[in-house]
Amino acid sequence: MKVVWERLIRFVTTDGRVLRGDPILPSPDFDLGNTTEETKLQAHVIAGSDPYDTTGYTRVTDEVVTVKQLLGPLAQDDVDILRCIGLNYAKHIKEAGRSPPPFPSVFFKPSTCIQDHGANVIVPKIAQDDQADYEGELAIVIGKNAKNVSTEDALDYVAAYTCGNDISSRKLQRDPAFAGRVPQWGFSKGFDTFAPIGPCLVNPELIGDPKKLLLKTIVNGDTRQEEYVDDLLFDCAYLISYLSSGTTLKKGSVIMTGTPGGVGAGLNPPQYLVPGTTMEVVIDKIGTLRNGVEFA
Amino acid sequence: MKVVWERLIRFVTTDGRVLRGDPILPSPDFDLGNTTEETKLQAHVIAGSDPYDTTGYTRVTDEVVTVKQLLGPLAQDDVDILRCIGLNYAKHIKEAGRSPPPFPSVFFKPSTCIQDHGANVIVPKIAQDDQADYEGELAIVIGKNAKNVSTEDALDYVAAYTCGNDISSRKLQRDPAFAGRVPQWGFSKGFDTFAPIGPCLVNPELIGDPKKLLLKTIVNGDTRQEEYVDDLLFDCAYLISYLSSGTTLKKGSVIMTGTPGGVGAGLNPPQYLVPGTTMEVVIDKIGTLRNGVEFA
Repeated sequence: MKVVWERLIRFVTTDGRVLRGDPILPSPDFDLGNTTEETKLQAHVIAGSDPYDTTGYTRVTDEVVTVKQLLGPLAQDDVDILRCIGLNYAKHIKEAGRSPPPFPSVFFKPSTCIQDHGANVIVPKIAQDDQADYEGELAIVIGKNAKNVSTEDALDYVAAYTCGNDISSRKLQRDPAFAGRVPQWGFSKGFDTFAPIGPCLVNPELIGDPKKLLLKTIVNGDTRQEEYVDDLLFDCAYLISYLSSGTTLKKGSVIMTGTPGGVGAGLNPPQYLVPGTTMEVVIDKIGTLRNGVEFA
Repeated sequence: MKVVWERLIRFVTTDGRVLRGDPILPSPDFDLGNTTEETKLQAHVIAGSDPYDTTGYTRVTDEVVTVKQLLGPLAQDDVDILRCIGLNYAKHIKEAGRSPPPFPSVFFKPSTCIQDHGANVIVPKIAQDDQADYEGELAIVIGKNAKNVSTEDALDYVAAYTCGNDISSRKLQRDPAFAGRVPQWGFSKGFDTFAPIGPCLVNPELIGDPKKLLLKTIVNGDTRQEEYVDDLLFDCAYLISYLSSGTTLKKGSVIMTGTPGGVGAGLNPPQYLVPGTTMEVVIDKIGTLRNGVEFA
């Protein structure tokens, strides 16, 4: 499929409207994650309620507006559900002395997890005791309903790529005193604000081969995760095909492709999210998804 | 909260419309799951797009129509997401020689799993090899957004109770050759049609104390599961409160409360779903949720 925009941002205009737009980059390498009121970023307004429409109803208009504040490209209501993959970076699996899973390990986050670029992740009381953690990831946005799709056809269902951060509560996930006998990937990763996405959606034509992208997660200025997407055990096309087996991946749903080594729980000593932590997920050609942290 | 209907059904009328209605029971103990074209069940049409509205916009009208075919009470678009609880019947845990989990084990099903009462569960190719299984459950429908709700207030967020069937693919769930090192509750339970719900929503005032309900699952006429909801390790109020920790349970979302012993995988020898199997989940005061099985 071919969406009508090159990049999609969602933002507050200087006159207070919340709009979607296709940004006019001040320079070819401008990082949209660095947009502030001072950068006076301009964008062509995208008209039409369905950003994935390719029938002519949705279009990039001539109306140019100035961005006051960048939000995430997707609001909660824009997303059906998020499908997430555990243990998917080969080097990380090897380093950890684990066997590669035979098939993707799949878990879900509800759409209520979606949080804007630039906004704080809010750690609820139940997850505040040394356990909240980041996971930088490449995220895929599905642009048309997909079911029983072959790997050959899979990438035609991609409307865009973006950065995602799969915020996770490690005790609720792994500690038998909380999780019981086996790890829990539902409740521990499903709190409100636990899926920041952004800073923009990028048309696959601008991305080219997603395997060539470099993913970094930088925490308080310190690079913690750094890996090429090429290291994915199950790549984007395979994931879409596998996840669509007997299952309708609805337009607007998001796939988080997994995280490489370097999460806070794996450091010695572990370093968890505390109020004031700044997390940046940076991917080539997409930009920087930046979020702070606060405790509810 | 107090929804405006006693029971809510969704159905095709004799003149071909799909409507919601409050049924006029032919007898006080009529099982709505036994509705057929021949029973000529009548219902008052429920007007208003939001069945949980309590502001007067949604109402049970004087228009009486005849039911040609009962559907499920909830369409896919009516449901945000399903939250499901594993290992929650105390006797079943004890029988299986397992320790009770310290907190609820939570997993999600996407809304695309919702299937009508009376329709077949369609087992996709990937789950056809001796692994598809039933799990009869009491389901809770949330009627207004809930977040950080106390156990004392929790039941006020319940719009209705109904029967649910958490269809599960056991190899994809548990077999290390498919699931890897630890059980997988995402992909294995998330296929289209894997969450039949119905036959009707029932106002909590008609249910009284949900702990007094008896749950049965009958497969091809054989009672396989039979337990009082009172045996739940984590009861309805606790589940709503726990699940709402730092998390918005959206209006229209569904909670599946867990299944007792007696699933097909636990029989000796195991008995899995095959084309032609009939599954009935029967709960007092709610009725019979009946579904067949076919292979895609």
